[in-house]
Amino acid sequence: MRPPFDPALYLVTDTALAGPRGVPEVVRAAVAGGVTAVQVRDKTASRRELYALTLAVKEVLAGTGVVLFVNDAVDVALLADADGVHVGQDDLPAADVRTLVGPDRLLGLSAGSDDELAVALALPPGTVDVVGIGPVWSTPTKPDAGTGLGPGGVAALAAKAAAGGLQSVAIGGIDVERAPLVTGVDGICVVSAICAAPDPAAAARALRSAR
Amino acid sequence: MRPPFDPALYLVTDTALAGPRGVPEVVRAAVAGGVTAVQVRDKTASRRELYALTLAVKEVLAGTGVVLFVNDAVDVALLADADGVHVGQDDLPAADVRTLVGPDRLLGLSAGSDDELAVALALPPGTVDVVGIGPVWSTPTKPDAGTGLGPGGVAALAAKAAAGGLQSVAIGGIDVERAPLVTGVDGICVVSAICAAPDPAAAARALRSAR
Repeated sequence: MRPPFDPALYLVTDTALAGPRGVPEVVRAAVAGGVTAVQVRDKTASRRELYALTLAVKEVLAGTGVVLFVNDAVDVALLADADGVHVGQDDLPAADVRTLVGPDRLLGLSAGSDDELAVALALPPGTVDVVGIGPVWSTPTKPDAGTGLGPGGVAALAAKAAAGGLQSVAIGGIDVERAPLVTGVDGICVVSAICAAPDPAAAARALRSAR
Repeated sequence: MRPPFDPALYLVTDTALAGPRGVPEVVRAAVAGGVTAVQVRDKTASRRELYALTLAVKEVLAGTGVVLFVNDAVDVALLADADGVHVGQDDLPAADVRTLVGPDRLLGLSAGSDDELAVALALPPGTVDVVGIGPVWSTPTKPDAGTGLGPGGVAALAAKAAAGGLQSVAIGGIDVERAPLVTGVDGICVVSAICAAPDPAAAARALRSAR
C-alpha cells in the first residue's frame, strides 16, 4: 500500500537556498507551518551526500505523516526507504522506476507540456501517482525549465491529469502572492518561497492560508 | 552466483573520447581486441541517457563473456541487469550498494590510498569484489584524481588487497608503453588508451600483449 499522500503544500528542498540553517532545519520549520509533502532535491550533491541528506530529512519527518520523496535518485530512495521518488522527463523512464521501487512507493513525474503529460497518461494505471506541472512562471531555481505555462496552462493540464486519474501539483515561481492564482491542481510545490524565507514556518503558514 | 570475472584488461568508457564512432562501437572493437571487462561511465549523461548507453553496450557484450559494470548509478545497473557496479568513495557506500544489488552482482570500489583501501578491507567478506587502485599516473580524463601513486604505490596497495581477498585493477594514465610497468594487480583499466585510439581493437591487442 502506498502511503497516504496529501499534496496540498509540497516543499522541494534547495540546499543553497537553505543556507547555513541547513535543509533539515528548514524542513522541520516548514512542516510545523503546514507543509504536507517534502521532496529532497540536490542536483549538485554526490550520491553519498544526497543519501545523508535524505536520511537527515527522513529523521525530521518521522512521525509527522508528511511523505518524503527523493528527486531522481532511485537508488537513494530505496536505500533511505523513502515514501516516493520524483523523476523528470530526462531521468529514468517512469515505468522502469516503478519496477525498481515496487508497488508501495509513490512516484511523481514532471510534465511541462501536453506531450509530456501524455507520457504519464499512457502508462499503466498505478505507475505514476502525481504529476508536477510547470513551470507556472519562469523561475530562477530552474532556469532551464522554460518561460512558464501560466495559471491557465497549468489548469488545463491539471484537468487532463485528473481525468486520467492522476493527482497534480503546480511548480515554478509560486509564492504567497501568486498562490491564489493557481487553480485546478491538488497542490502547489514551492522551493524558494520556503527555502529562502527568513521564517520558513511562517512562509508555509502563509502559503496554506493563501489557498 | 556472481558472474565469472577476468579483470585482465578492463575498459572504462568515455563518451567524449569515443567521439562520433560511439561508445558501443568502440566497445565492440575493444572486445574483439581482447578487453575482458567493460565499465560504462558517463558523468555528464542524464540518468536516462546513461541507461540507454548501458543497454546499447550490453547488447554488444551479449554472448561474449565480457562482464558489464555501470559506474556509480546503481539504479541503472539494476534496470539494465548489468553484471556489476563500480562506485567511488563519494558514491553510495559500498555496504549499501551491496544491499541494493544483492549477492549475484560484482561490486568494484575505487581506492586511491591506504585509508581508502582500508574501507574496502573492513567490509564483510563478499561485499566488494575488486578495488580500482589509482591513479597510477595523473590523467587528463580524471583531473581531480590526484598526482599518481606510481607503480610502486599501486603494487603495495594491490598486495594488501590480495591479502584481504580482493581482486585489484590499476587505473590512471596506463597506455601500451606504461602497461608493463604496472605489476602486482590482477588487471589494468584503461580509458583513453582505447577510447581515444584510432583503432580500438589494435589498441586492446597491444595492451594485452604488453603484459
